[in-house]
Amino acid sequence: MYSGIKLLAGTASRELAGEISAYLNEPICDHEVIEFPNENVFVRLRRSVRGQDVYIIQTTSSPVNRNLMELLITLQTLKLDSAGRITAVIPYLCYARSDKKDQPRVPITARLVADLIQVAGADRYMVLDLHAGQIQGFFSIPGDALTTFHMLSGYFLEQRGRLQDPVIVAADLGYSKKGRNFAAKLGSSMAFIEKRRRGNDPSAEALTIVGEVAGHDVIVVDDEVATAGSVVQAVELVKAHGARDVYLCFVHPVFAADAAERLARLPVKQIVTTNTIPLLASQRAGLGDRLVVLSVAPLLGEVIRRAHEGRSVGEMFNE
Amino acid sequence: MYSGIKLLAGTASRELAGEISAYLNEPICDHEVIEFPNENVFVRLRRSVRGQDVYIIQTTSSPVNRNLMELLITLQTLKLDSAGRITAVIPYLCYARSDKKDQPRVPITARLVADLIQVAGADRYMVLDLHAGQIQGFFSIPGDALTTFHMLSGYFLEQRGRLQDPVIVAADLGYSKKGRNFAAKLGSSMAFIEKRRRGNDPSAEALTIVGEVAGHDVIVVDDEVATAGSVVQAVELVKAHGARDVYLCFVHPVFAADAAERLARLPVKQIVTTNTIPLLASQRAGLGDRLVVLSVAPLLGEVIRRAHEGRSVGEMFNE
Amino acid sequence: MYSGIKLLAGTASRELAGEISAYLNEPICDHEVIEFPNENVFVRLRRSVRGQDVYIIQTTSSPVNRNLMELLITLQTLKLDSAGRITAVIPYLCYARSDKKDQPRVPITARLVADLIQVAGADRYMVLDLHAGQIQGFFSIPGDALTTFHMLSGYFLEQRGRLQDPVIVAADLGYSKKGRNFAAKLGSSMAFIEKRRRGNDPSAEALTIVGEVAGHDVIVVDDEVATAGSVVQAVELVKAHGARDVYLCFVHPVFAADAAERLARLPVKQIVTTNTIPLLASQRAGLGDRLVVLSVAPLLGEVIRRAHEGRSVGEMFNE
Amino acid sequence: MYSGIKLLAGTASRELAGEISAYLNEPICDHEVIEFPNENVFVRLRRSVRGQDVYIIQTTSSPVNRNLMELLITLQTLKLDSAGRITAVIPYLCYARSDKKDQPRVPITARLVADLIQVAGADRYMVLDLHAGQIQGFFSIPGDALTTFHMLSGYFLEQRGRLQDPVIVAADLGYSKKGRNFAAKLGSSMAFIEKRRRGNDPSAEALTIVGEVAGHDVIVVDDEVATAGSVVQAVELVKAHGARDVYLCFVHPVFAADAAERLARLPVKQIVTTNTIPLLASQRAGLGDRLVVLSVAPLLGEVIRRAHEGRSVGEMFNE
Amino acid sequence: MYSGIKLLAGTASRELAGEISAYLNEPICDHEVIEFPNENVFVRLRRSVRGQDVYIIQTTSSPVNRNLMELLITLQTLKLDSAGRITAVIPYLCYARSDKKDQPRVPITARLVADLIQVAGADRYMVLDLHAGQIQGFFSIPGDALTTFHMLSGYFLEQRGRLQDPVIVAADLGYSKKGRNFAAKLGSSMAFIEKRRRGNDPSAEALTIVGEVAGHDVIVVDDEVATAGSVVQAVELVKAHGARDVYLCFVHPVFAADAAERLARLPVKQIVTTNTIPLLASQRAGLGDRLVVLSVAPLLGEVIRRAHEGRSVGEMFNE
Amino acid sequence: MYSGIKLLAGTASRELAGEISAYLNEPICDHEVIEFPNENVFVRLRRSVRGQDVYIIQTTSSPVNRNLMELLITLQTLKLDSAGRITAVIPYLCYARSDKKDQPRVPITARLVADLIQVAGADRYMVLDLHAGQIQGFFSIPGDALTTFHMLSGYFLEQRGRLQDPVIVAADLGYSKKGRNFAAKLGSSMAFIEKRRRGNDPSAEALTIVGEVAGHDVIVVDDEVATAGSVVQAVELVKAHGARDVYLCFVHPVFAADAAERLARLPVKQIVTTNTIPLLASQRAGLGDRLVVLSVAPLLGEVIRRAHEGRSVGEMFNE
Repeated sequence: MYSGIKLLAGTASRELAGEISAYLNEPICDHEVIEFPNENVFVRLRRSVRGQDVYIIQTTSSPVNRNLMELLITLQTLKLDSAGRITAVIPYLCYARSDKKDQPRVPITARLVADLIQVAGADRYMVLDLHAGQIQGFFSIPGDALTTFHMLSGYFLEQRGRLQDPVIVAADLGYSKKGRNFAAKLGSSMAFIEKRRRGNDPSAEALTIVGEVAGHDVIVVDDEVATAGSVVQAVELVKAHGARDVYLCFVHPVFAADAAERLARLPVKQIVTTNTIPLLASQRAGLGDRLVVLSVAPLLGEVIRRAHEGRSVGEMFNE
Repeated sequence: MYSGIKLLAGTASRELAGEISAYLNEPICDHEVIEFPNENVFVRLRRSVRGQDVYIIQTTSSPVNRNLMELLITLQTLKLDSAGRITAVIPYLCYARSDKKDQPRVPITARLVADLIQVAGADRYMVLDLHAGQIQGFFSIPGDALTTFHMLSGYFLEQRGRLQDPVIVAADLGYSKKGRNFAAKLGSSMAFIEKRRRGNDPSAEALTIVGEVAGHDVIVVDDEVATAGSVVQAVELVKAHGARDVYLCFVHPVFAADAAERLARLPVKQIVTTNTIPLLASQRAGLGDRLVVLSVAPLLGEVIRRAHEGRSVGEMFNE
Repeated sequence: MYSGIKLLAGTASRELAGEISAYLNEPICDHEVIEFPNENVFVRLRRSVRGQDVYIIQTTSSPVNRNLMELLITLQTLKLDSAGRITAVIPYLCYARSDKKDQPRVPITARLVADLIQVAGADRYMVLDLHAGQIQGFFSIPGDALTTFHMLSGYFLEQRGRLQDPVIVAADLGYSKKGRNFAAKLGSSMAFIEKRRRGNDPSAEALTIVGEVAGHDVIVVDDEVATAGSVVQAVELVKAHGARDVYLCFVHPVFAADAAERLARLPVKQIVTTNTIPLLASQRAGLGDRLVVLSVAPLLGEVIRRAHEGRSVGEMFNE
Repeated sequence: MYSGIKLLAGTASRELAGEISAYLNEPICDHEVIEFPNENVFVRLRRSVRGQDVYIIQTTSSPVNRNLMELLITLQTLKLDSAGRITAVIPYLCYARSDKKDQPRVPITARLVADLIQVAGADRYMVLDLHAGQIQGFFSIPGDALTTFHMLSGYFLEQRGRLQDPVIVAADLGYSKKGRNFAAKLGSSMAFIEKRRRGNDPSAEALTIVGEVAGHDVIVVDDEVATAGSVVQAVELVKAHGARDVYLCFVHPVFAADAAERLARLPVKQIVTTNTIPLLASQRAGLGDRLVVLSVAPLLGEVIRRAHEGRSVGEMFNE
Repeated sequence: MYSGIKLLAGTASRELAGEISAYLNEPICDHEVIEFPNENVFVRLRRSVRGQDVYIIQTTSSPVNRNLMELLITLQTLKLDSAGRITAVIPYLCYARSDKKDQPRVPITARLVADLIQVAGADRYMVLDLHAGQIQGFFSIPGDALTTFHMLSGYFLEQRGRLQDPVIVAADLGYSKKGRNFAAKLGSSMAFIEKRRRGNDPSAEALTIVGEVAGHDVIVVDDEVATAGSVVQAVELVKAHGARDVYLCFVHPVFAADAAERLARLPVKQIVTTNTIPLLASQRAGLGDRLVVLSVAPLLGEVIRRAHEGRSVGEMFNE
Repeated sequence: MYSGIKLLAGTASRELAGEISAYLNEPICDHEVIEFPNENVFVRLRRSVRGQDVYIIQTTSSPVNRNLMELLITLQTLKLDSAGRITAVIPYLCYARSDKKDQPRVPITARLVADLIQVAGADRYMVLDLHAGQIQGFFSIPGDALTTFHMLSGYFLEQRGRLQDPVIVAADLGYSKKGRNFAAKLGSSMAFIEKRRRGNDPSAEALTIVGEVAGHDVIVVDDEVATAGSVVQAVELVKAHGARDVYLCFVHPVFAADAAERLARLPVKQIVTTNTIPLLASQRAGLGDRLVVLSVAPLLGEVIRRAHEGRSVGEMFNE
């Protein structure tokens, strides 16, 4: 349908793009990204993409606004060069937590970001584990909203034998339903952490654990770790309630501020995450052997291949 | 800013519109809605709305597709008559449960509905308790996504004295976070119902209750009751686990099929809901005194007034 | 240009789609259409349509609003599954009579319907005998506005020998020009029925026949029969003016209310129509042998083939 | 609602705009229109229109493409100057006969023109007697599609006493329905002219008159006279069939080529038209006393006033 | 990617299109362009363009507004016939000098023209030497904004030996930068003409030459010659300052009013231009041997070929 | 026309917004801007802006991408809160130098930025001294593209007496025309700096001065100073050619990298600029008394007032 496939690696996803390139056995299409002294990002394609089926891989992790802007500029550059079809492959979508007005006079920035991506020129998008599935509906263009659920739950399923009566604990009530899916896959039970404000002090929160964790191995699950506040609380709470070994599992290692350091200090057995966001060497070092990073490259690579060839993606998951 | 306010009552919300009209002390602007023998809905405004600030109140309950189409046709009619600003006031938004692709090759109908409302001519929308707050982001136009939370939780707060150690139970894990808000408002604890499929039989589900309900009064909360399947399961489960009195509380009485009859047979103390969807006399009769319907007319009326006058809506909730 | 052709059969056009499938020797691409107890229509494609050239065949006859909504939902589903090109094949387009504001403060619903079809995701449309050709201009997307004129007039031309001095009578003045084309094709003369309101009573109409029908066979032509009011009047009038045998010919058998029964009682020799709208078995039975239904499947099938292959459609008619 | 009203006179409607200005007692807002030697039209507003309710009056008669382009440039100029609301008042809309594809591979130029007017910046449009009412549906913006029917039929109604058994004859079958309205208003009967091609010669047409004209006064009605071909044929035909006095009545005096000269030679009693298009002095002179030009200024002026004040236009016609 | 290539020749570029057709060895796809007596332009394609990659070549020289309108109508016709991709090839883009508001209340007509071209249906555009490169940004669609710089400067480079110490003089300060590129290519120096108004008389201008021209051959460069006012001034000024031979070089021979006659009277050695706009035989004759017209057909032809085949255009210029 | 005026101060223009607020005697409408640890910018309005005429003042200087993103998020927040009209007041528009494709496969980022501003919700824009006036045409919304030309040239005009035979030198040929306007205002002559690449080394440039500077005071003019490369070259060149006192004058003090330090070392008499971008205290200190910063607050304030009141802005400049 399109002349050929073209992979572009944004500066925020160079390594991941390389893995995808290896998976697909397709070279990265080289392009320049320059940042001028006035901070203006400038993009120049080294090869023409006229009529090609282009995939620009760029996560929107720190520096967030610069990386998003680089993505937008690259999309427009591809459009102006008359690309045949442009897919924005965004392993981690920034601003996804601003997905509704839960108080007056605030933005829905995730919708804004979707609008920006479209107006810049994307024909399709590809994302991993959106904070809320509904963000798919913020786009007018079609896309593939993929999940690492099979990969992450599969990881624990493989070592199911070593886990003692595991209990799934969602670090946040908003993640209850996805936690349930984890529990169902592993055949384990669940517990919930209920958090509410205490009095008038906005920072004072009361946490309650609902369900049994004492004597169980616990897997705390969430979609992302930014400041690590929620997961630190969750680990401490389940430990205080008598949990045996505790595992952390989350998709996106955002690791804002000193999150990696905070995780390093936690009494957890393993920290299982993915490479939707590249980790710094120092972060990896601090977490040591307990850190398990599963690569999303085969998943993204396979979906890109099928999208290019017009084949079903659902089939990959027997759907 | 606009010459005047004009209220229109769609055929699905005649009664509610009348209450809003009374609250605002503004007459309903009469218009004809005819359904031709070929089922084509036809609308004719009896008075010009040129330059006016128009509010068309039409819920999208059964017959769903016809009522939605009437809303769209009325919106276009208002636009073509050069209305100054058009707000679609939709107490219950249909298709809201189809809000993401959670399996391949399915629609996101709530986004489609948002698109239809906009293309038909709405400048703003007003809705009550969206199934997911993110649906706000499906609209490109501004709107007021309001909640009956204050009204419904306030109702139980008033009779807090009569409730024995109440526990909030969300009928569905997806409603956990809103259930938590209820619990926090009432200062009560929570329990969760975890549902998962059993084996290969899609209709066989295993339900587990996580948390304590024995000896407690239980308030089962949800956003809507369609076939009543979830709430019937929930009530039976908490009863089986020793709950004392059980109350049902939900925003939208969709009441599909024999839902009202199923509710009538449930061993519950009270069924608290709202008039976002008009109930049939027979449905009301079957539920008798246990049914409490709180009117959303003052809420919608006040928001319409403030929207028209350019005043803050958030202030109504101290926000 | 596209990977392949995919035919989808909407629930309102299952039989016709089957005939088109047979004509093209292309299987129907199976998809589920479920109507939930809350009347929400849900669509799931069983096979991926990524990059395919898709034709969804769905007429918009009764239940009109539900069938239209099913069409829109299917269009969005196809778009979200990244179909290559989507053509909405709508044998009968609903709301087409609402095509202009001929009085103040009314809708132009046909334009609205065109907008809905586009916003839902159609890239092209295909329709048969629009009530007014100008409705083509309501779409921003390209399309094929086809006509059964050649097929229907050809039918009468074949039996020209058996007709005695036939006269064409347009049931409505708005159909005069198309009636003239019929007359020209058959080499016959014309008569006109002029209808006007009598006094202040809106339902009292005065009918005049202009032109000669006495002793002639008469073919009453129109684009659709909904309540059958116009054609019943026409047949009675020409009979009263001495017409010999009377034939009815119209494209779309909408048959609202008791139209089929009314037609069954008419003193006409033949009723010639098409299958743009499926007839009920009871309707067919009531009309018996006098009913002639010409199939539009070969026409639609051939146009779909040519549209897919990028070949001229006009050539089919030596244009 | 808007700060004030501003009338602009395009170069093609200077005189008419002056009459409207007098009717409304509002001055013309002066602006420059320059045509550079390279034929580029240039517009400069002499006064700011920020926030104003602006009406640019420009008919699109000869030179058609230049006048249309002037209209579009003026619309953009007004938009860029931040006008509050812009209404394109187009007494005669060009290209209106190209309103559907009645053969393959042709444009629908009237839709294109509607698109151009919108993209240039019009918020509303105002037109008189569209060739087909459906052209209203070509616009996405609201508008007032007005008619001179009341004015023209009223003219003949006033002199009804002097007419002998008048018969209305539509010069074209496409005008049958509007002709019927004329007849109903005057309480007269109708006759039809049916035209069809003769053999293979495209220019050879056979004309038939259906209905009685012998001994009657005849009013030949049409929407516009361009080359005058149709009306010349019609007049000759009714004269040949024994008509008494013949009157011509049409809305838009397009008068292409030598139309005015051809009309001048016709044996008609009166030629009744309007000033939607300005006539040349030479054309007026040639037609002499038989020419009656009714002014649309009061109609347009009154509608502009009501549109500005947000009052009903339909009321003007008891609708 | 597209079924095939189709070249269409607009009436304003028949000859150039013929040359491009010869270059590409692809026939012109015949289509009718009729101008009705009412000046309405009508287009009919003789062959279907469904799914084709279509290039409509139409310059927008005199009659400017008619030629632009023909282009727009043709674009819509192609879109409505379901062309696969439509490229508007516009050798000279009209209204390009109206590219910003340099005084209040004026249009930016070049942006309007870009909008018109897009709304009419173009998927891509191709232009030569825009008056300002920024006009590329007026389009939302991708395009190829090409330049004849290599061709024109190459012409002078070839005869560099015959030129004595050539100096490049930009006829207008706005062309300084492009003039510098000419100078750099030829390795020659530059001089500038600075023009400013004198006193209150808008037509009184004072011209100063900055830089040395005495004893040098001078090449006066500009992008277009409309009335020839600027270049006549420039030539007279450099002559007055002692220039030896003077050459004129400009891309677009707009030749409004008596420009060709004015050029014919100038004491210049050569007038080097292109065929983006066809010259009249009389204009060519008047300029005689001194006129050198370089053809843009190979450039446009090669770019069309590469655009069709999805190959780099930048490579043509080692970019 | 709008209920009231509301001024918002973006974090990048707090001081300037304060001056505008003082000029207009209108308070700043307080709003929160929070940057979360994950770098996500969050905005919350403290007061409702429903129906108000809102002006958000935010320059897009360093940190450029973050400040732009804050502007976009604020615009969306205002739109979602149903502001009546939203004007983005952007004293310095980032990415403006990327305004055309002057080589293949590069972006036109200024167009992208215009698109982002519009899609985020701006109804109008207000900018100062765009790098190229044509960027106005990148917006589809109306705006006020203002200039500090009168203010800056007026500054030098006032001290005209102290300047000895001043010569205007544009630091870049692209600024020639604006330099000419300066020269005309001051009644002084001009000189030009012509820069071209030397050989194959991209960084080796040859500079030539065309025109007389020896013994003259020189004012080097440009629109912005980023790295200061061009102006440093210009000052050195004119000094080397014997200029007397040298003055620098530019609108936007972008001051990237060590630009302020480089300017501080230059042998110039005065550096005249504006506060479209706030200077750091250290930058001001380094430049000392030679730095003259003219405030744009009265200009922006007056234009905001007139825009709000629907009065002419052009009148401010006698236009």
